[in-house]
Amino acid sequence: MKDVLTPYKRRLETYLSALPLTGAPEKLRSAMRYSLLSGGKRLRGCLTLMSCEMAGSDSEAALPFAAALEMIHAYSLIHDDLPAMDNDTLRRGKPTNHVVYGEAMAILAGDGLLTHAFELIASSPHPRAFRAFGEIARAAGVGGMLAGQTLDVTLEGTQPELETVQAIHRGKTAALLTAPVTAGLILGGASEAEIEAGRAFGCHLGMAFQIVDDLLDLEGDPALMGKTLGKDQAEGKLTWPACVGVPQAKKDAEAHTRAALDALSCFGERAASIRELTCAMLRRAQ
Amino acid sequence: MKDVLTPYKRRLETYLSALPLTGAPEKLRSAMRYSLLSGGKRLRGCLTLMSCEMAGSDSEAALPFAAALEMIHAYSLIHDDLPAMDNDTLRRGKPTNHVVYGEAMAILAGDGLLTHAFELIASSPHPRAFRAFGEIARAAGVGGMLAGQTLDVTLEGTQPELETVQAIHRGKTAALLTAPVTAGLILGGASEAEIEAGRAFGCHLGMAFQIVDDLLDLEGDPALMGKTLGKDQAEGKLTWPACVGVPQAKKDAEAHTRAALDALSCFGERAASIRELTCAMLRRAQ
Repeated sequence: MKDVLTPYKRRLETYLSALPLTGAPEKLRSAMRYSLLSGGKRLRGCLTLMSCEMAGSDSEAALPFAAALEMIHAYSLIHDDLPAMDNDTLRRGKPTNHVVYGEAMAILAGDGLLTHAFELIASSPHPRAFRAFGEIARAAGVGGMLAGQTLDVTLEGTQPELETVQAIHRGKTAALLTAPVTAGLILGGASEAEIEAGRAFGCHLGMAFQIVDDLLDLEGDPALMGKTLGKDQAEGKLTWPACVGVPQAKKDAEAHTRAALDALSCFGERAASIRELTCAMLRRAQ
Repeated sequence: MKDVLTPYKRRLETYLSALPLTGAPEKLRSAMRYSLLSGGKRLRGCLTLMSCEMAGSDSEAALPFAAALEMIHAYSLIHDDLPAMDNDTLRRGKPTNHVVYGEAMAILAGDGLLTHAFELIASSPHPRAFRAFGEIARAAGVGGMLAGQTLDVTLEGTQPELETVQAIHRGKTAALLTAPVTAGLILGGASEAEIEAGRAFGCHLGMAFQIVDDLLDLEGDPALMGKTLGKDQAEGKLTWPACVGVPQAKKDAEAHTRAALDALSCFGERAASIRELTCAMLRRAQ
Protein backbone atom coordinates (compact mmCIF):
# COMPACT_ATOMS: atom_id res chain seq x y z
CA MET A 1 0.00 0.00 0.00
CA LYS A 2 2.85 2.32 0.94
CA ASP A 3 4.55 2.15 -2.44
CA VAL A 4 1.63 3.27 -4.52
CA LEU A 5 0.79 6.06 -2.07
CA THR A 6 4.32 7.37 -1.49
CA PRO A 7 4.56 10.04 -4.22
CA TYR A 8 1.06 11.39 -3.44
CA LYS A 9 1.68 11.30 0.28
CA ARG A 10 4.93 13.23 -0.11
CA ARG A 11 3.26 16.06 -2.05
CA LEU A 12 0.46 16.18 0.49
CA GLU A 13 2.77 16.31 3.51
CA THR A 14 4.71 19.17 1.94
CA TYR A 15 1.49 21.05 1.23
CA LEU A 16 0.03 20.41 4.69
CA SER A 17 3.11 21.44 6.62
CA ALA A 18 3.44 24.65 4.60
CA LEU A 19 -0.15 25.74 5.30
CA PRO A 20 0.03 29.14 7.00
CA LEU A 21 -3.19 28.77 9.07
CA THR A 22 -3.36 32.55 8.78
CA GLY A 23 -4.50 34.40 11.87
CA ALA A 24 -4.52 31.41 14.20
CA PRO A 25 -3.18 32.16 17.69
CA GLU A 26 0.03 30.20 18.38
CA LYS A 27 -1.52 27.67 20.75
CA LEU A 28 -4.36 26.87 18.38
CA ARG A 29 -1.98 26.54 15.43
CA SER A 30 0.25 24.26 17.44
CA ALA A 31 -2.63 21.99 18.55
CA MET A 32 -3.99 21.81 15.00
CA ARG A 33 -0.59 20.98 13.50
CA TYR A 34 0.09 18.37 16.19
CA SER A 35 -2.77 16.22 14.93
CA LEU A 36 -2.69 17.21 11.27
CA LEU A 37 1.00 16.41 10.87
CA SER A 38 1.16 13.27 13.00
CA GLY A 39 1.55 10.92 10.05
CA GLY A 40 -1.14 8.47 9.13
CA LYS A 41 -1.71 6.88 5.75
CA ARG A 42 -3.18 10.03 4.14
CA LEU A 43 -5.60 7.72 2.40
CA ARG A 44 -8.28 10.40 1.91
CA GLY A 45 -5.87 12.95 0.55
CA CYS A 46 -4.11 10.47 -1.74
CA LEU A 47 -7.43 9.16 -3.05
CA THR A 48 -8.43 12.72 -3.98
CA LEU A 49 -5.27 13.24 -6.02
CA MET A 50 -5.40 9.76 -7.57
CA SER A 51 -9.07 10.15 -8.53
CA CYS A 52 -8.39 13.49 -10.16
CA GLU A 53 -5.69 11.82 -12.24
CA MET A 54 -7.99 8.87 -12.95
CA ALA A 55 -10.28 11.40 -14.66
CA GLY A 56 -7.34 12.24 -16.92
CA SER A 57 -6.24 15.52 -15.31
CA ASP A 58 -3.22 16.83 -13.51
CA SER A 59 -3.90 16.71 -9.75
CA GLU A 60 -2.21 19.95 -8.68
CA ALA A 61 -5.51 21.87 -8.41
CA ALA A 62 -6.95 19.09 -6.25
CA LEU A 63 -4.35 19.60 -3.49
CA PRO A 64 -6.44 22.02 -1.37
CA PHE A 65 -9.33 19.52 -1.50
CA ALA A 66 -7.04 16.63 -0.60
CA ALA A 67 -5.72 18.69 2.32
CA ALA A 68 -9.27 19.61 3.35
CA LEU A 69 -10.24 15.94 3.52
CA GLU A 70 -7.20 15.18 5.67
CA MET A 71 -8.19 18.06 7.96
CA ILE A 72 -11.74 16.77 8.30
CA HIS A 73 -10.34 13.33 9.09
CA ALA A 74 -7.94 14.81 11.68
CA TYR A 75 -10.73 16.84 13.32
CA SER A 76 -12.94 13.76 13.59
CA LEU A 77 -10.16 11.82 15.32
CA ILE A 78 -9.45 14.63 17.81
CA HIS A 79 -13.11 14.90 18.80
CA ASP A 80 -13.56 11.08 18.82
CA ASP A 81 -10.64 10.72 21.23
CA LEU A 82 -12.02 13.23 23.77
CA PRO A 83 -12.79 11.93 27.29
CA ALA A 84 -16.53 12.47 26.72
CA MET A 85 -16.37 10.36 23.54
CA ASP A 86 -14.01 7.36 23.18
CA ASN A 87 -11.57 8.61 25.84
CA ASP A 88 -8.50 7.46 23.91
CA THR A 89 -5.05 8.49 25.08
CA LEU A 90 -2.93 7.03 22.29
CA ARG A 91 -3.19 7.58 18.52
CA ARG A 92 -0.53 6.60 15.95
CA GLY A 93 1.85 5.87 18.84
CA LYS A 94 1.56 9.39 20.28
CA PRO A 95 -0.54 10.90 23.08
CA THR A 96 -3.87 12.16 21.78
CA ASN A 97 -4.51 15.88 21.30
CA HIS A 98 -6.37 16.51 24.56
CA VAL A 99 -3.67 14.67 26.55
CA VAL A 100 -1.09 17.13 25.21
CA TYR A 101 -3.12 20.36 24.88
CA GLY A 102 -6.01 19.88 27.30
CA GLU A 103 -9.66 19.34 26.48
CA ALA A 104 -10.56 22.93 25.69
CA MET A 105 -7.78 23.31 23.12
CA ALA A 106 -8.55 19.88 21.64
CA ILE A 107 -12.18 20.89 21.06
CA LEU A 108 -11.00 24.15 19.46
CA ALA A 109 -8.31 22.40 17.39
CA GLY A 110 -10.97 20.05 16.01
CA ASP A 111 -13.32 22.94 15.27
CA GLY A 112 -10.38 24.77 13.69
CA LEU A 113 -9.43 21.91 11.38
CA LEU A 114 -13.03 21.39 10.25
CA THR A 115 -13.53 25.08 9.54
CA HIS A 116 -10.13 25.50 7.91
CA ALA A 117 -10.91 22.63 5.56
CA PHE A 118 -13.76 24.74 4.20
CA GLU A 119 -11.62 27.90 4.18
CA LEU A 120 -9.10 26.08 1.99
CA ILE A 121 -11.82 24.93 -0.38
CA ALA A 122 -13.30 28.44 -0.49
CA SER A 123 -9.97 29.82 -1.71
CA SER A 124 -9.78 27.47 -4.70
CA PRO A 125 -10.14 29.13 -8.11
CA HIS A 126 -11.12 25.81 -9.74
CA PRO A 127 -14.29 26.19 -11.87
CA ARG A 128 -15.82 23.04 -10.36
CA ALA A 129 -14.76 23.85 -6.77
CA PHE A 130 -18.33 24.49 -5.61
CA ARG A 131 -19.60 21.08 -6.68
CA ALA A 132 -16.63 19.29 -5.11
CA PHE A 133 -17.28 21.33 -1.96
CA GLY A 134 -20.82 19.93 -1.83
CA GLU A 135 -19.56 16.33 -2.01
CA ILE A 136 -17.20 16.97 0.89
CA ALA A 137 -19.66 18.91 3.06
CA ARG A 138 -22.34 16.22 2.70
CA ALA A 139 -19.88 13.40 3.44
CA ALA A 140 -18.72 15.12 6.63
CA GLY A 141 -22.28 16.05 7.57
CA VAL A 142 -25.14 14.78 9.67
CA GLY A 143 -26.19 12.24 7.03
CA GLY A 144 -22.59 11.08 6.59
CA MET A 145 -19.67 10.90 8.99
CA LEU A 146 -21.55 12.49 11.89
CA ALA A 147 -24.43 10.03 11.52
CA GLY A 148 -21.98 7.14 11.86
CA GLN A 149 -20.27 8.77 14.80
CA THR A 150 -23.58 9.41 16.59
CA LEU A 151 -24.75 5.82 16.14
CA ASP A 152 -21.35 4.59 17.30
CA VAL A 153 -21.57 6.66 20.50
CA THR A 154 -25.24 6.08 21.28
CA LEU A 155 -25.45 2.38 20.47
CA GLU A 156 -22.23 1.31 22.20
CA GLY A 157 -22.89 -1.77 24.33
CA THR A 158 -26.14 -2.75 22.59
CA GLN A 159 -26.66 -6.07 20.82
CA PRO A 160 -24.63 -5.99 17.57
CA GLU A 161 -26.92 -6.11 14.55
CA LEU A 162 -25.54 -6.14 11.05
CA GLU A 163 -27.84 -3.40 9.77
CA THR A 164 -26.71 -1.01 12.51
CA VAL A 165 -23.04 -1.81 12.07
CA GLN A 166 -23.47 -1.27 8.34
CA ALA A 167 -24.98 2.19 8.99
CA ILE A 168 -22.13 3.08 11.37
CA HIS A 169 -19.42 1.94 8.95
CA ARG A 170 -21.12 3.62 6.01
CA GLY A 171 -21.20 6.91 7.93
CA LYS A 172 -18.00 6.85 9.94
CA THR A 173 -15.74 5.45 7.25
CA ALA A 174 -17.26 4.96 3.81
CA ALA A 175 -18.66 8.52 3.48
CA LEU A 176 -15.26 10.09 4.01
CA LEU A 177 -13.56 7.62 1.66
CA THR A 178 -16.17 8.20 -1.05
CA ALA A 179 -15.97 12.02 -1.02
CA PRO A 180 -12.26 12.06 -2.01
CA VAL A 181 -13.10 9.91 -5.02
CA THR A 182 -16.14 11.88 -6.21
CA ALA A 183 -14.52 15.26 -5.44
CA GLY A 184 -11.31 14.22 -7.21
CA LEU A 185 -13.25 13.00 -10.24
CA ILE A 186 -15.35 16.17 -10.37
CA LEU A 187 -12.23 18.35 -10.22
CA GLY A 188 -10.58 16.20 -12.87
CA GLY A 189 -13.49 16.69 -15.26
CA ALA A 190 -14.96 13.17 -15.17
CA SER A 191 -18.31 12.37 -16.80
CA GLU A 192 -21.46 11.87 -14.72
CA ALA A 193 -21.24 8.09 -15.28
CA GLU A 194 -17.64 8.08 -14.09
CA ILE A 195 -18.54 10.10 -10.98
CA GLU A 196 -21.27 7.57 -10.12
CA ALA A 197 -18.86 4.66 -10.70
CA GLY A 198 -16.44 6.43 -8.36
CA ARG A 199 -19.20 6.75 -5.76
CA ALA A 200 -19.88 3.00 -5.87
CA PHE A 201 -16.15 2.28 -5.71
CA GLY A 202 -15.65 4.56 -2.70
CA CYS A 203 -18.54 3.05 -0.83
CA HIS A 204 -17.29 -0.53 -1.23
CA LEU A 205 -13.73 0.50 -0.52
CA GLY A 206 -14.89 2.19 2.68
CA MET A 207 -16.81 -0.87 3.86
CA ALA A 208 -13.85 -3.16 3.07
CA PHE A 209 -11.50 -0.76 4.85
CA GLN A 210 -13.58 -0.59 8.02
CA ILE A 211 -14.16 -4.36 8.20
CA VAL A 212 -10.40 -4.84 7.87
CA ASP A 213 -9.91 -2.23 10.62
CA ASP A 214 -12.32 -4.12 12.89
CA LEU A 215 -10.38 -7.34 12.19
CA LEU A 216 -7.05 -5.67 12.93
CA ASP A 217 -8.38 -4.41 16.26
CA LEU A 218 -8.97 -8.08 17.15
CA GLU A 219 -5.91 -9.66 15.56
CA GLY A 220 -3.43 -6.89 14.76
CA ASP A 221 0.00 -6.16 16.23
CA PRO A 222 -0.20 -3.16 18.62
CA ALA A 223 3.42 -2.17 17.85
CA LEU A 224 2.60 -1.94 14.14
CA MET A 225 -0.74 -0.19 14.70
CA GLY A 226 0.46 2.49 17.14
CA LYS A 227 -2.80 2.49 19.04
CA THR A 228 -4.54 0.62 21.83
CA LEU A 229 -5.97 -2.61 20.39
CA GLY A 230 -8.80 -4.83 21.57
CA LYS A 231 -10.63 -1.69 22.73
CA ASP A 232 -13.62 -2.25 20.44
CA GLN A 233 -14.47 -5.50 22.17
CA ALA A 234 -13.73 -4.24 25.69
CA GLU A 235 -16.02 -1.23 25.17
CA GLY A 236 -18.83 -3.09 23.46
CA LYS A 237 -18.26 -1.27 20.14
CA LEU A 238 -20.43 -2.55 17.33
CA THR A 239 -18.02 -4.19 14.88
CA TRP A 240 -18.44 -6.35 11.81
CA PRO A 241 -16.73 -9.46 13.24
CA ALA A 242 -18.86 -9.10 16.40
CA CYS A 243 -21.93 -9.57 14.16
CA VAL A 244 -20.80 -12.26 11.75
CA GLY A 245 -17.65 -13.79 13.25
CA VAL A 246 -14.06 -13.46 12.03
CA PRO A 247 -14.14 -15.91 9.07
CA GLN A 248 -17.28 -14.34 7.56
CA ALA A 249 -15.91 -10.83 8.18
CA LYS A 250 -12.84 -11.75 6.13
CA LYS A 251 -15.07 -13.03 3.33
CA ASP A 252 -17.14 -9.83 3.46
CA ALA A 253 -14.02 -7.67 3.25
CA GLU A 254 -13.00 -9.64 0.16
CA ALA A 255 -16.44 -9.29 -1.41
CA HIS A 256 -16.48 -5.51 -0.90
CA THR A 257 -12.96 -5.33 -2.34
CA ARG A 258 -14.09 -7.23 -5.44
CA ALA A 259 -17.13 -4.99 -5.82
CA ALA A 260 -14.89 -1.94 -5.48
CA LEU A 261 -12.59 -3.25 -8.20
CA ASP A 262 -15.56 -4.02 -10.46
CA ALA A 263 -16.77 -0.44 -10.14
CA LEU A 264 -13.44 0.77 -11.51
CA SER A 265 -13.79 -1.10 -14.80
CA CYS A 266 -14.99 1.95 -16.76
CA PHE A 267 -11.67 3.69 -16.06
CA GLY A 268 -9.53 1.01 -17.73
CA GLU A 269 -5.80 1.51 -17.37
CA ARG A 270 -6.20 4.92 -15.73
CA ALA A 271 -7.35 3.11 -12.56
CA ALA A 272 -4.15 1.04 -12.22
CA SER A 273 -2.83 2.85 -9.11
CA ILE A 274 -6.18 2.93 -7.34
CA ARG A 275 -6.64 -0.77 -8.13
CA GLU A 276 -3.28 -1.57 -6.60
CA LEU A 277 -4.16 0.48 -3.51
CA THR A 278 -7.49 -1.33 -3.15
CA CYS A 279 -5.88 -4.76 -3.22
CA ALA A 280 -3.13 -3.71 -0.81
CA MET A 281 -5.72 -2.44 1.64
CA LEU A 282 -7.37 -5.87 1.88
CA ARG A 283 -4.02 -7.61 2.38
CA ARG A 284 -3.56 -5.76 5.69
CA ALA A 285 -5.96 -8.25 7.27
CA GLN A 286 -4.52 -11.40 5.74
CA MET B 1 -34.48 46.34 18.22
CA LYS B 2 -37.24 43.74 18.24
CA ASP B 3 -39.57 45.69 15.95
CA VAL B 4 -37.16 46.11 13.07
CA LEU B 5 -36.03 42.49 13.32
CA THR B 6 -39.47 40.87 13.69
CA PRO B 7 -40.38 40.22 10.04
CA TYR B 8 -36.89 38.87 9.23
CA LYS B 9 -36.78 36.80 12.39
CA ARG B 10 -40.14 35.25 11.61
CA ARG B 11 -39.05 34.13 8.12
CA LEU B 12 -35.84 32.76 9.55
CA GLU B 13 -37.54 30.80 12.35
CA THR B 14 -39.92 29.22 9.83
CA TYR B 15 -37.00 28.28 7.58
CA LEU B 16 -34.87 26.92 10.44
CA SER B 17 -37.58 24.80 12.00
CA ALA B 18 -38.48 23.29 8.62
CA LEU B 19 -34.89 22.22 7.87
CA PRO B 20 -34.94 18.45 7.33
CA LEU B 21 -31.37 17.76 8.60
CA THR B 22 -31.50 14.83 6.18
CA GLY B 23 -29.90 11.62 7.39
CA ALA B 24 -29.27 12.78 10.97
CA PRO B 25 -29.97 10.09 13.59
CA GLU B 26 -32.86 11.10 15.86
CA LYS B 27 -30.74 11.93 18.89
CA LEU B 28 -28.35 14.13 16.90
CA ARG B 29 -31.23 15.91 15.17
CA SER B 30 -32.89 16.52 18.52
CA ALA B 31 -29.72 17.92 20.14
CA MET B 32 -29.06 20.17 17.13
CA ARG B 33 -32.63 21.49 17.06
CA TYR B 34 -32.63 22.08 20.82
CA SER B 35 -29.93 24.73 20.48
CA LEU B 36 -30.76 25.98 17.00
CA LEU B 37 -34.42 26.66 17.85
CA SER B 38 -33.97 28.02 21.36
CA GLY B 39 -34.76 31.61 20.42
CA GLY B 40 -32.15 34.30 20.54
CA LYS B 41 -32.13 37.55 18.63
CA ARG B 42 -31.18 35.97 15.26
CA LEU B 43 -29.01 38.99 14.72
CA ARG B 44 -26.64 37.22 12.31
CA GLY B 45 -29.42 35.75 10.22
CA CYS B 46 -31.43 38.97 10.13
CA LEU B 47 -28.35 40.99 9.19
CA THR B 48 -27.77 38.65 6.23
CA LEU B 49 -31.28 39.20 4.90
CA MET B 50 -31.24 42.94 5.61
CA SER B 51 -27.84 43.37 3.92
CA CYS B 52 -29.02 41.52 0.84
CA GLU B 53 -31.97 43.92 0.64
CA MET B 54 -29.66 46.88 1.32
CA ALA B 55 -27.91 45.89 -1.93
CA GLY B 56 -31.25 46.30 -3.66
CA SER B 57 -32.23 42.64 -4.03
CA ASP B 58 -34.92 40.35 -2.75
CA SER B 59 -33.53 38.38 0.20
CA GLU B 60 -35.18 35.00 -0.45
CA ALA B 61 -32.02 33.46 -1.94
CA ALA B 62 -30.03 34.62 1.09
CA LEU B 63 -32.09 32.49 3.50
CA PRO B 64 -29.78 29.42 3.43
CA PHE B 65 -26.82 31.70 4.19
CA ALA B 66 -28.73 33.45 6.99
CA ALA B 67 -29.58 30.02 8.41
CA ALA B 68 -25.97 28.89 8.04
CA LEU B 69 -24.77 31.86 10.07
CA GLU B 70 -27.30 31.09 12.81
CA MET B 71 -26.06 27.49 12.81
CA ILE B 72 -22.44 28.57 13.14
CA HIS B 73 -23.45 30.87 16.00
CA ALA B 74 -25.40 28.05 17.69
CA TYR B 75 -22.48 25.61 17.32
CA SER B 76 -20.07 28.11 18.86
CA LEU B 77 -22.35 28.57 21.88
CA ILE B 78 -22.75 24.80 22.42
CA HIS B 79 -18.99 24.23 22.37
CA ASP B 80 -18.31 27.38 24.46
CA ASP B 81 -20.69 26.16 27.15
CA LEU B 82 -19.00 22.73 27.50
CA PRO B 83 -17.51 21.85 30.91
CA ALA B 84 -13.98 21.95 29.43
CA MET B 85 -14.62 25.48 28.11
CA ASP B 86 -16.82 28.01 29.98
CA ASN B 87 -18.78 25.34 31.87
CA ASP B 88 -22.08 27.19 31.56
CA THR B 89 -25.30 25.47 32.57
CA LEU B 90 -27.81 28.13 31.56
CA ARG B 91 -28.32 29.83 28.19
CA ARG B 92 -31.34 31.91 27.19
CA GLY B 93 -33.06 30.74 30.36
CA LYS B 94 -32.73 27.05 29.47
CA PRO B 95 -30.24 24.35 30.47
CA THR B 96 -27.30 24.25 28.06
CA ASN B 97 -26.99 21.50 25.46
CA HIS B 98 -24.59 19.26 27.36
CA VAL B 99 -26.74 19.47 30.50
CA VAL B 100 -29.67 18.05 28.52
CA TYR B 101 -27.95 15.71 26.04
CA GLY B 102 -24.62 14.90 27.71
CA GLU B 103 -21.18 16.05 26.66
CA ALA B 104 -20.65 13.59 23.81
CA MET B 105 -23.90 14.56 22.07
CA ALA B 106 -23.22 18.27 22.68
CA ILE B 107 -19.84 17.97 20.97
CA LEU B 108 -21.48 16.15 18.05
CA ALA B 109 -24.40 18.60 17.90
CA GLY B 110 -21.92 21.47 17.62
CA ASP B 111 -19.94 19.65 14.94
CA GLY B 112 -23.22 18.86 13.19
CA LEU B 113 -24.42 22.46 13.15
CA LEU B 114 -21.08 23.74 11.85
CA THR B 115 -20.95 21.14 9.09
CA HIS B 116 -24.61 21.52 8.19
CA ALA B 117 -24.11 25.27 7.79
CA PHE B 118 -21.72 24.46 4.96
CA GLU B 119 -24.00 21.75 3.55
CA LEU B 120 -26.78 24.33 3.32
CA ILE B 121 -24.50 26.79 1.56
CA ALA B 122 -23.27 24.06 -0.81
CA SER B 123 -26.85 23.42 -1.92
CA SER B 124 -27.46 27.03 -2.96
CA PRO B 125 -27.85 27.62 -6.70
CA HIS B 126 -26.99 31.34 -6.32
CA PRO B 127 -24.32 32.41 -8.85
CA ARG B 128 -22.35 34.22 -6.14
CA ALA B 129 -22.75 31.48 -3.52
CA PHE B 130 -19.08 30.50 -3.63
CA ARG B 131 -17.83 33.98 -2.80
CA ALA B 132 -20.35 34.39 0.04
CA PHE B 133 -19.23 30.95 1.29
CA GLY B 134 -15.65 32.26 1.52
CA GLU B 135 -16.70 35.24 3.64
CA ILE B 136 -18.51 32.93 6.06
CA ALA B 137 -15.80 30.25 6.23
CA ARG B 138 -13.09 32.82 6.95
CA ALA B 139 -15.18 34.58 9.61
CA ALA B 140 -15.81 31.28 11.42
CA GLY B 141 -12.21 30.21 10.96
CA VAL B 142 -8.92 30.24 12.81
CA GLY B 143 -8.24 33.88 11.93
CA GLY B 144 -11.80 34.85 12.92
CA MET B 145 -14.17 33.49 15.51
CA LEU B 146 -11.88 30.65 16.58
CA ALA B 147 -8.97 33.05 17.11
CA GLY B 148 -11.13 35.08 19.50
CA GLN B 149 -12.35 31.98 21.25
CA THR B 150 -8.81 30.63 21.70
CA LEU B 151 -7.51 33.90 23.15
CA ASP B 152 -10.57 34.05 25.41
CA VAL B 153 -9.86 30.56 26.77
CA THR B 154 -6.09 30.80 27.01
CA LEU B 155 -5.79 34.32 28.43
CA GLU B 156 -8.54 34.01 31.05
CA GLY B 157 -7.28 35.36 34.37
CA THR B 158 -4.38 37.35 32.91
CA GLN B 159 -4.01 41.12 33.28
CA PRO B 160 -6.63 42.76 31.02
CA GLU B 161 -4.97 44.73 28.23
CA LEU B 162 -7.00 46.66 25.71
CA GLU B 163 -5.17 45.27 22.68
CA THR B 164 -5.88 41.68 23.75
CA VAL B 165 -9.53 42.37 24.54
CA GLN B 166 -9.83 44.06 21.17
CA ALA B 167 -8.45 40.95 19.45
CA ILE B 168 -10.83 38.70 21.39
CA HIS B 169 -13.89 40.84 20.61
CA ARG B 170 -12.88 41.22 16.98
CA GLY B 171 -12.64 37.46 16.63
CA LYS B 172 -15.38 36.17 18.89
CA THR B 173 -18.03 38.71 17.96
CA ALA B 174 -17.16 41.14 15.18
CA ALA B 175 -16.08 38.50 12.65
CA LEU B 176 -19.40 36.69 12.82
CA LEU B 177 -21.37 39.96 12.67
CA THR B 178 -19.36 41.16 9.65
CA ALA B 179 -19.78 38.02 7.56
CA PRO B 180 -23.61 38.31 7.46
CA VAL B 181 -23.23 41.83 6.09
CA THR B 182 -20.60 41.06 3.46
CA ALA B 183 -22.23 37.76 2.47
CA GLY B 184 -25.65 39.42 2.25
CA LEU B 185 -24.25 42.26 0.15
CA ILE B 186 -22.41 39.85 -2.16
CA LEU B 187 -25.57 37.79 -2.68
CA GLY B 188 -27.55 40.96 -3.27
CA GLY B 189 -25.19 42.09 -6.03
CA ALA B 190 -23.52 45.00 -4.24
CA SER B 191 -20.48 46.79 -5.73
CA GLU B 192 -16.98 46.21 -4.37
CA ALA B 193 -17.07 49.62 -2.64
CA GLU B 194 -20.37 48.74 -1.00
CA ILE B 195 -19.02 45.38 0.18
CA GLU B 196 -16.04 47.12 1.79
CA ALA B 197 -18.33 49.70 3.42
CA GLY B 198 -20.37 46.78 4.76
CA ARG B 199 -17.20 45.21 6.14
CA ALA B 200 -16.33 48.38 8.04
CA PHE B 201 -19.90 48.66 9.30
CA GLY B 202 -19.96 45.05 10.51
CA CYS B 203 -16.67 45.41 12.32
CA HIS B 204 -17.75 48.52 14.26
CA LEU B 205 -21.19 47.05 14.92
CA GLY B 206 -19.54 43.91 16.31
CA MET B 207 -17.25 45.87 18.62
CA ALA B 208 -20.15 48.02 19.86
CA PHE B 209 -22.26 44.90 20.37
CA GLN B 210 -19.63 43.09 22.43
CA ILE B 211 -18.80 46.13 24.59
CA VAL B 212 -22.52 46.49 25.31
CA ASP B 213 -22.63 42.77 26.14
CA ASP B 214 -19.72 43.17 28.56
CA LEU B 215 -21.55 46.08 30.19
CA LEU B 216 -24.78 44.10 30.47
CA ASP B 217 -22.90 41.25 32.19
CA LEU B 218 -21.93 43.80 34.87
CA GLU B 219 -25.14 45.81 35.09
CA GLY B 220 -27.89 43.85 33.35
CA ASP B 221 -31.00 42.20 34.76
CA PRO B 222 -30.52 38.39 34.95
CA ALA B 223 -34.26 37.80 34.44
CA LEU B 224 -34.19 39.77 31.18
CA MET B 225 -30.92 38.22 30.00
CA GLY B 226 -31.81 34.56 30.67
CA LYS B 227 -28.24 33.65 31.58
CA THR B 228 -25.90 33.72 34.54
CA LEU B 229 -24.57 37.26 34.94
CA GLY B 230 -21.44 38.60 36.62
CA LYS B 231 -19.61 35.48 35.40
CA ASP B 232 -17.09 37.42 33.31
CA GLN B 233 -15.73 39.16 36.38
CA ALA B 234 -15.85 36.07 38.62
CA GLU B 235 -13.89 34.05 36.06
CA GLY B 236 -11.36 36.71 35.21
CA LYS B 237 -12.66 37.06 31.61
CA LEU B 238 -11.02 39.85 29.68
CA THR B 239 -13.75 42.42 29.10
CA TRP B 240 -13.80 45.96 27.80
CA PRO B 241 -15.01 47.62 31.03
CA ALA B 242 -12.34 45.65 32.95
CA CYS B 243 -9.73 47.49 30.84
CA VAL B 244 -11.13 51.00 30.63
CA GLY B 245 -13.84 51.21 33.31
CA VAL B 246 -17.61 51.43 32.84
CA PRO B 247 -17.94 55.11 31.84
CA GLN B 248 -15.25 54.87 29.14
CA ALA B 249 -16.69 51.56 27.91
CA LYS B 250 -20.04 53.29 27.36
CA LYS B 251 -18.31 56.05 25.41
CA ASP B 252 -16.44 53.49 23.30
CA ALA B 253 -19.67 51.64 22.51
CA GLU B 254 -21.13 54.95 21.34
CA ALA B 255 -18.08 55.76 19.23
CA HIS B 256 -18.18 52.37 17.50
CA THR B 257 -21.91 52.82 16.90
CA ARG B 258 -21.28 56.21 15.28
CA ALA B 259 -18.50 54.76 13.12
CA ALA B 260 -20.83 51.93 12.10
CA LEU B 261 -23.52 54.41 11.09
CA ASP B 262 -20.98 56.50 9.16
CA ALA B 263 -19.94 53.45 7.15
CA LEU B 264 -23.55 53.03 6.00
CA SER B 265 -23.71 56.46 4.36
CA CYS B 266 -23.11 55.14 0.83
CA PHE B 267 -26.34 53.10 1.04
CA GLY B 268 -28.57 56.12 1.65
CA GLU B 269 -32.19 55.28 2.35
CA ARG B 270 -31.70 51.57 1.66
CA ALA B 271 -29.85 51.34 5.01
CA ALA B 272 -32.81 52.65 7.06
CA SER B 273 -33.62 49.33 8.79
CA ILE B 274 -30.01 48.46 9.53
CA ARG B 275 -29.48 51.97 10.89
CA GLU B 276 -32.44 51.55 13.21
CA LEU B 277 -31.10 48.17 14.37
CA THR B 278 -27.65 49.65 15.05
CA CYS B 279 -29.05 52.42 17.25
CA ALA B 280 -31.34 50.01 19.10
CA MET B 281 -28.41 47.75 19.86
CA LEU B 282 -26.55 50.53 21.67
CA ARG B 283 -29.64 51.45 23.69
CA ARG B 284 -29.58 48.04 25.39
CA ALA B 285 -26.77 49.35 27.61
CA GLN B 286 -28.27 52.74 28.42
